[in-house]
Amino acid sequence: MAMRLFGNRVSHPVRACILLARKVGQPLEEVNVDILKGEQFKIKDLPFRKIPVLKHGDLTLAESTAILRYIADSSPSGGDWYPKDLKKRAKVDEFLDHWHSTFNPTIFNLMRNKLFYKMLFRADKPDEKVIAELRKAKDSNNKLFNSYFIKGKPFVAGEAPSIADILATVTMDQTSLIGEDLSPVTAYMDRVKSHLEGYDELHKVAMEMPVTLRKMKMIS
Amino acid sequence: MAMRLFGNRVSHPVRACILLARKVGQPLEEVNVDILKGEQFKIKDLPFRKIPVLKHGDLTLAESTAILRYIADSSPSGGDWYPKDLKKRAKVDEFLDHWHSTFNPTIFNLMRNKLFYKMLFRADKPDEKVIAELRKAKDSNNKLFNSYFIKGKPFVAGEAPSIADILATVTMDQTSLIGEDLSPVTAYMDRVKSHLEGYDELHKVAMEMPVTLRKMKMIS
Repeated sequence: MAMRLFGNRVSHPVRACILLARKVGQPLEEVNVDILKGEQFKIKDLPFRKIPVLKHGDLTLAESTAILRYIADSSPSGGDWYPKDLKKRAKVDEFLDHWHSTFNPTIFNLMRNKLFYKMLFRADKPDEKVIAELRKAKDSNNKLFNSYFIKGKPFVAGEAPSIADILATVTMDQTSLIGEDLSPVTAYMDRVKSHLEGYDELHKVAMEMPVTLRKMKMIS
Repeated sequence: MAMRLFGNRVSHPVRACILLARKVGQPLEEVNVDILKGEQFKIKDLPFRKIPVLKHGDLTLAESTAILRYIADSSPSGGDWYPKDLKKRAKVDEFLDHWHSTFNPTIFNLMRNKLFYKMLFRADKPDEKVIAELRKAKDSNNKLFNSYFIKGKPFVAGEAPSIADILATVTMDQTSLIGEDLSPVTAYMDRVKSHLEGYDELHKVAMEMPVTLRKMKMIS
């Protein structure tokens, strides 16, 4: 039975799921949810009114990290991307959990404040003080990523790339839409991208978001 | 090689790890970190200056949800608690991820504002407006827990309890320290607790926290 992914390619967790599915040869039917038009609030199949959501037979999965684990574990070639070795797997889990608790909330809030201040906060202009704090937190998280999660290895789990690296890379790269400096993590990101076919084409869709928001008069 | 857990029993994710280790017969040496005295900022073994942290040989794991997965997967009898069946495992993962993204931040912030307003925010009294908003969010999360994660089944993954149920129960129960109403989830929590030996004795340690904080003149 085919897997269906409710999502939108402007979302970095959605792109992570697509990149993994392509990599492990898992057919994925994409159902586009127009989040700029608020479609996520109308579609009954989205339990938390958020994307991505995976449907596979009678299974509904509503968290991107659970989806990444499930796609990798369901695919015969997914073992390389979500290692079976328990210590390596634990390091992948540790980053995915850190992504939820710390890494992604910072970037998510930075993006909200830079791009969606009108749509979400009904503000005329972005709050530069809040943005400066979030940028500081993001830089600190990227530094910790290098010193703790990478620590001289090529990838989070060691010699081979994993779902942690896919998610880390698309998340760091999401800030390139708003011109953030990625130099401390560029070498790592290039290493990950070299394993992911079609990365640039997918990322281009996200890069168009500021243009779309400008057309909608949501940013100046 | 023995596993060592850096933690403190007043922390609900720490208690979840202890309860699981006991259940699956995994010996766990507890290293107490006095978080009320800020010891987490001094101990070099804590990468994020947070607890719990698990050490197992050359492995350091710094997120409670990664620790729960690792203890279950490492133990011969852990399979019941982190199911091998991929769809059941995915439902456990979905809750653990939802715990990070939504469920726990609300309760964590509610506890901070109720008990640690002096210690963290240097405020004379708690901000009742913030507390009311967090309480509303917590009630909404508990409701979603019943309607989506349980949905007529006894436990998150179906007929048998899992690490998702241990974590959900200790997290909901953490709010009993501040007298929160748990009636919508009491029946579920009792069902989970009936599988966890020593639950009440561990929880009692947490229940003493307000008394300790009162002695420290941190709450009135």
